[in-house]
Amino acid sequence: MGDKEEVKLLGTWYSPVVLRAKIALRLKLVDYDYVEEDLFGSKSELLLKSNPVHKKVPVLIHNNKPISESLNIVQYIDETWNSSGPSILPSHPHDRALARFWSAFVDNKWFPALRAAAITKSEDAKAKGMEEVEEGLLRLEEAFVALSKGKPFFGGEDIGLMDICFGSFLVLLKAREKLKGEKLLDESKTPSLCKWADEYLSDDTVKNVVPNVDKIAEFIGELEVKGQS
Amino acid sequence: MGDKEEVKLLGTWYSPVVLRAKIALRLKLVDYDYVEEDLFGSKSELLLKSNPVHKKVPVLIHNNKPISESLNIVQYIDETWNSSGPSILPSHPHDRALARFWSAFVDNKWFPALRAAAITKSEDAKAKGMEEVEEGLLRLEEAFVALSKGKPFFGGEDIGLMDICFGSFLVLLKAREKLKGEKLLDESKTPSLCKWADEYLSDDTVKNVVPNVDKIAEFIGELEVKGQS
Repeated sequence: MGDKEEVKLLGTWYSPVVLRAKIALRLKLVDYDYVEEDLFGSKSELLLKSNPVHKKVPVLIHNNKPISESLNIVQYIDETWNSSGPSILPSHPHDRALARFWSAFVDNKWFPALRAAAITKSEDAKAKGMEEVEEGLLRLEEAFVALSKGKPFFGGEDIGLMDICFGSFLVLLKAREKLKGEKLLDESKTPSLCKWADEYLSDDTVKNVVPNVDKIAEFIGELEVKGQS
Repeated sequence: MGDKEEVKLLGTWYSPVVLRAKIALRLKLVDYDYVEEDLFGSKSELLLKSNPVHKKVPVLIHNNKPISESLNIVQYIDETWNSSGPSILPSHPHDRALARFWSAFVDNKWFPALRAAAITKSEDAKAKGMEEVEEGLLRLEEAFVALSKGKPFFGGEDIGLMDICFGSFLVLLKAREKLKGEKLLDESKTPSLCKWADEYLSDDTVKNVVPNVDKIAEFIGELEVKGQS
């Protein structure tokens, strides 16, 4: 892509959705500058200017053009550096549709349920929310079997969109397990997802980018003390 | 694509999101069977089987493989019948990212605000919600100017993803205008969107597929009487 490529990623070290962009950039062997944002302090001018609608990370700035929303960024990276590294989206339209469908399920249904259950003060709402989270995991177990077709990843032999999407929450799940003893990914209920999670987190690209589970557990613990999680 | 194509769309006549699939199929000159679902009565076995996660329309069934979620369906149609009709997604990755970003804004921010404002019984929440809807329209006006680059559509010379996405709500806006005298698209505030709306609704493909404004107004009125809108 020539010498003049300027790639910058605005993120925070603990954000699962920023992790998606980092992994996609690594998979596609893209060099980039990383800018850590302080979302608890004041957001940078560059962030506010680059993502005026949501004012959120991640933002990818490629040759001065900003792109927001993590899955949108991952698809952009896949389409832009299409001859470098493995394809993140499958080649067949139906497989692509499935990857997008399940990624949307994770972002619009499953994770919002987990977040709502984590935030609520009502024990009833928490229990109901966690039930929804667990049902979602059973759905995702089925989805894994259908999409992976016996291969190690949702994307088959290679890490794909849905691996990056759902996989970005694995460290959070492990941190919650450490902090609360809560075991959401359970061998007896979601054996394929458990195996996939191990496979994903031990992948060379992934393990060099994911944040440390202990640090994330500490971070969540501090947020909870401040009443912000 | 050969003789063996079997394309079926499960929908309801009044659904804006079903309209997206219909328009994409028309643009790509795809013949299909349409199945009207009765969401107020009982959902068909085919719908429940084809979209077990959300149990919602639209569902596109192509050679027995179901695809759900309207924007996902539109992208699938664009990728599957890629040599037929104009491209629905732009060719450049950055333009594609913008089309996806703004479509997500419509579906995840703007329309949910409109729906919440329509449903709530609190006058305060309604007023606040409608403020968000109007602010969203100002954002969309800016987006139109940026994306269309002086051409008639968000997609440029041709109808694209964002036209199909946002355009699917135009009949609803017109029906609300008729029913409530509420004028959301206003010449003085969003002149480019007003011009675009006229252009879009008078497009040959679109005008043959959109439901009748009076029928939609009547339908919304009945829902409101039943307390369902």
